[in-house]
Amino acid sequence: MAGQVNPLQAGLQEPDKTSDLEAFVGYNLKRAYIVMQNDFRKALGQDGPSARVFSALSLTVQFPNITQSMLARKLGIERSGLVAIIDELEQLGHLKRTHVPGDRRVQALVPTEAGVAAYQSAVQSVRAHEASILAHLDKKEITMLNVLLKKIRIQGEDS
Amino acid sequence: MAGQVNPLQAGLQEPDKTSDLEAFVGYNLKRAYIVMQNDFRKALGQDGPSARVFSALSLTVQFPNITQSMLARKLGIERSGLVAIIDELEQLGHLKRTHVPGDRRVQALVPTEAGVAAYQSAVQSVRAHEASILAHLDKKEITMLNVLLKKIRIQGEDS
Repeated sequence: MAGQVNPLQAGLQEPDKTSDLEAFVGYNLKRAYIVMQNDFRKALGQDGPSARVFSALSLTVQFPNITQSMLARKLGIERSGLVAIIDELEQLGHLKRTHVPGDRRVQALVPTEAGVAAYQSAVQSVRAHEASILAHLDKKEITMLNVLLKKIRIQGEDS
Repeated sequence: MAGQVNPLQAGLQEPDKTSDLEAFVGYNLKRAYIVMQNDFRKALGQDGPSARVFSALSLTVQFPNITQSMLARKLGIERSGLVAIIDELEQLGHLKRTHVPGDRRVQALVPTEAGVAAYQSAVQSVRAHEASILAHLDKKEITMLNVLLKKIRIQGEDS
């Protein structure tokens, strides 16, 4: 039997055989996303914001008085999913719920001074995290990657 | 007051201003991933497999007798997270738990005939879904995208 391959052990003996999955953008996207997500958490630390909280704070700081609907749309998430994020940022004292001038029914969000400071600190950490995890990609590749990823997002918004 | 911009309305009046987030690969990755994920669900239908179940079935079909540890590693997920996926595939009759020849302590997975057929049908749907959602990207762009995404994954595995 020497030299004969037991077909039952094929899975064990070819761990590096390329799988069909490698050809799928969806699979490669997810794997890369998991890597970025794990490194983000590690870089921002236990007490730092999660990626989704960071994104919501970023938009609130850049677009003061943004409505919850617009924030949800800009983040590409459901309004229902946004509530927990806003609650967390409000409890941290990073933003306040207010009303859109002229329409008291619509809630808008404004960052506090502490929220702006927290964002400015977090954005430095996020830049450092991306520079480190993307060190194997040159500037041109990063630009290309962002362009291609935005193409997918835009097609998703159209469909 | 005509012509005067109320700064409190800035967030409402500049919905298309580019945010800081657009420069972050992590943000663009997540947005593209959400688009692909939603379209995958829509394309595979209520009764079709989720992306993670599809990936696990794909690897079991391609690497019969794969161990659970290797499957988890190939999927980039924790072994604990894999159990529910394997249970689902076993209940569907798509795979069977068996033992690695020569080591009865190690569980391995083999696809059933129904599992192979289900995979062959699903993979057609996944190819059609990717062709449709990525219609705005040409072949060269898709290849480039996969190469760049794999670079991120490999860096993640190294770190």
